[in-house]
Amino acid sequence: MKNQIADPEAKSFSRAELLENLLQISIALSASRDRREMLEMILTEARRLTNAQAGTLYIKHQDQLQFVVAQNDVIDLSTIDDKLIGRSIKIANNSLAGFAALTGRIVNIPDSHHLASGAPFRINRDLDQTTGYDTRSILAIPLKCPDGEVVGVLQLINCLGHDGAIVPFQLHQDQPIMSLASMAAVSIHNLLLTERLKRANLDTIIRLSVIAEFRDRGTAQHIKRISHTSTLIARAMKLDDEQVELIQSASPMHDIGKIGIPDSILLKPGPLTDEERKTVEKHTIIGGEILANPTNDLMITARDIAMCHHERWDGGGYPHHLKKEEIPLSARIVALADVFDALATERCYKKAYPMDKVIPIIRQEVGKHFDPNVAKAFFSILDHVVETYNAYSKSTDKQAALEEE
Amino acid sequence: MKNQIADPEAKSFSRAELLENLLQISIALSASRDRREMLEMILTEARRLTNAQAGTLYIKHQDQLQFVVAQNDVIDLSTIDDKLIGRSIKIANNSLAGFAALTGRIVNIPDSHHLASGAPFRINRDLDQTTGYDTRSILAIPLKCPDGEVVGVLQLINCLGHDGAIVPFQLHQDQPIMSLASMAAVSIHNLLLTERLKRANLDTIIRLSVIAEFRDRGTAQHIKRISHTSTLIARAMKLDDEQVELIQSASPMHDIGKIGIPDSILLKPGPLTDEERKTVEKHTIIGGEILANPTNDLMITARDIAMCHHERWDGGGYPHHLKKEEIPLSARIVALADVFDALATERCYKKAYPMDKVIPIIRQEVGKHFDPNVAKAFFSILDHVVETYNAYSKSTDKQAALEEE
Repeated sequence: MKNQIADPEAKSFSRAELLENLLQISIALSASRDRREMLEMILTEARRLTNAQAGTLYIKHQDQLQFVVAQNDVIDLSTIDDKLIGRSIKIANNSLAGFAALTGRIVNIPDSHHLASGAPFRINRDLDQTTGYDTRSILAIPLKCPDGEVVGVLQLINCLGHDGAIVPFQLHQDQPIMSLASMAAVSIHNLLLTERLKRANLDTIIRLSVIAEFRDRGTAQHIKRISHTSTLIARAMKLDDEQVELIQSASPMHDIGKIGIPDSILLKPGPLTDEERKTVEKHTIIGGEILANPTNDLMITARDIAMCHHERWDGGGYPHHLKKEEIPLSARIVALADVFDALATERCYKKAYPMDKVIPIIRQEVGKHFDPNVAKAFFSILDHVVETYNAYSKSTDKQAALEEE
Repeated sequence: MKNQIADPEAKSFSRAELLENLLQISIALSASRDRREMLEMILTEARRLTNAQAGTLYIKHQDQLQFVVAQNDVIDLSTIDDKLIGRSIKIANNSLAGFAALTGRIVNIPDSHHLASGAPFRINRDLDQTTGYDTRSILAIPLKCPDGEVVGVLQLINCLGHDGAIVPFQLHQDQPIMSLASMAAVSIHNLLLTERLKRANLDTIIRLSVIAEFRDRGTAQHIKRISHTSTLIARAMKLDDEQVELIQSASPMHDIGKIGIPDSILLKPGPLTDEERKTVEKHTIIGGEILANPTNDLMITARDIAMCHHERWDGGGYPHHLKKEEIPLSARIVALADVFDALATERCYKKAYPMDKVIPIIRQEVGKHFDPNVAKAFFSILDHVVETYNAYSKSTDKQAALEEE
């Protein structure tokens, strides 16, 4: 147990001191990079401003309130923290925090052992029963955003009076805690928006990747192999983790433009006529159109790869005859992974070549089709790649065998 | 001109008063729903806290700073507001605000007529020259978020001393203006994140719609017609604007699942075999997979429509044999628009039927294939729909004629 009894000195803040404190908090809140640290700070300062012995902070997640921080000056929560943190309660009338979140109203309970008749909620005493703590006065403040959305609930427990006894919370509109609650709401809303934005950006990529895989059965495996080989190359080139991840996530969309090419050409067993070849080459342009006006790094990488993975280091590729560093590095990497895959696996117009035929072809094209640095990285991880291809080819055989049964 | 000379009374705030003021601002900031109102409030309060006669607020947009609010107690800006607001300056060393945004550093200029030697920026005097105002002391504060991103710049102009004379700004870390700047940064970041999130959600939809249109040439027109007819029906049913907009934006994706169906079946001129028909019917399931796990209303509507636009009111549709209100309303609307389109226009397996043949077929299916309420709304706007189809058919003829030349 820490601080069996709260420090009586801590209770004698003047209003001026609390306001000075608030000024510091507002700066600290906007400077805190760490989610956990920020949430702990909100609860610590909320307790300081209201003289609360304990408290909990919930964040809204869909129709639930997630328990994110708990603090108690009397009880050592570290042993039960694991059980508490991350637990959710449904936003509903039957719990105090749920009621505050649902109605958007502040709830001030002078003594939780004597709830006003007609209160729709019950006080959860699980924690009290486990720890021997006695929850008496409670103040639950919904954290509301400008658009009225409740993003969380701040629950303060057991207000300490001047003599150290537990007293009801006092609440007026001009109290510093109301200001802190407002700042906390905006900061937590920021956290949630940032997370939603990340998810929304990834969402586009995931759906486009699903579409790319639907184009035909063989493609799904092709896509996974290209992404895997490209990632290995990127890592061997010592690109930073973020770039490696971008290439891993964006490369599955390299052939997304093929959804605009007719099956009759795409699946043609024999060699293509000049006109058919020109039509197939359009998949890079169509890919560029589908991924046009990128609004984030992932989409930029995806567009670069879709548009430029058929460009050649020597300028002889398509669609824009870019050469050398004019071609985005991500596309130079996928270009090699793609050609290797086309050679090493079966296509509607050719059988799979054995590795001892594939490798010399790749080697011959270093400095012509391929960026020498990309090729160097590729050869440094060749064993891994070959291993993966052998595994893929076995799993495909197995899959095919299963389907024939 | 308003307030030719700033009210001397206004200058005598005590620190305690300023802090009380800040407490109110923090609450007001988090409660402000209106973008413009919030930004005006930030600048007004920043000026009050620093005793600044004038000020401007910039918000970052990509590599630019956008001029969003200007205030001046001496000069009437209303006549030149239009020219100022919305103007952008590049984030670069050559302007004061640009320098503050680029470096993330506060810049305090005691007298702008005597810049420190070596200052990389110049003071823009366009406004002074137009209005006769004299910009002397300036305080430029970058508005920084926890991740270090500068989201805007607060520029305060001409600090008024106790005697009303213009003096340099005083700046210490514990001043209320620093706290306001922090709160403003978080609030503006919130605005930006909200806008980015909206754009990201729309982004997915736009890209999927582009893909849907690439499936084949004829589809692009089909998609536009379905969206148009569905929107007319939704509006005739008196759905609220938001729902109408959702249906308008989501309906273009109703056949997105067809990217998983081979051309050989999709474009087959003759009637389909039972097995081919079953394959085509899978486009509803595939559409559902592409649009699975929706994270916003638009995506939910898109998934509902893609999965359920071949369900029938009487339960005889596919893929899940839903009936009546089990079928989402958006899908019931698109179902009618889709069948009408299939009848009224040419397909690879049939010619276009004339309207006097189409209408009786639709009418016969009310209460069988179609929701009677949807059908009623459809018939109420039939003239509009027919008009649009005639316009489309003419534009298609024209297009075709142009392409044959």
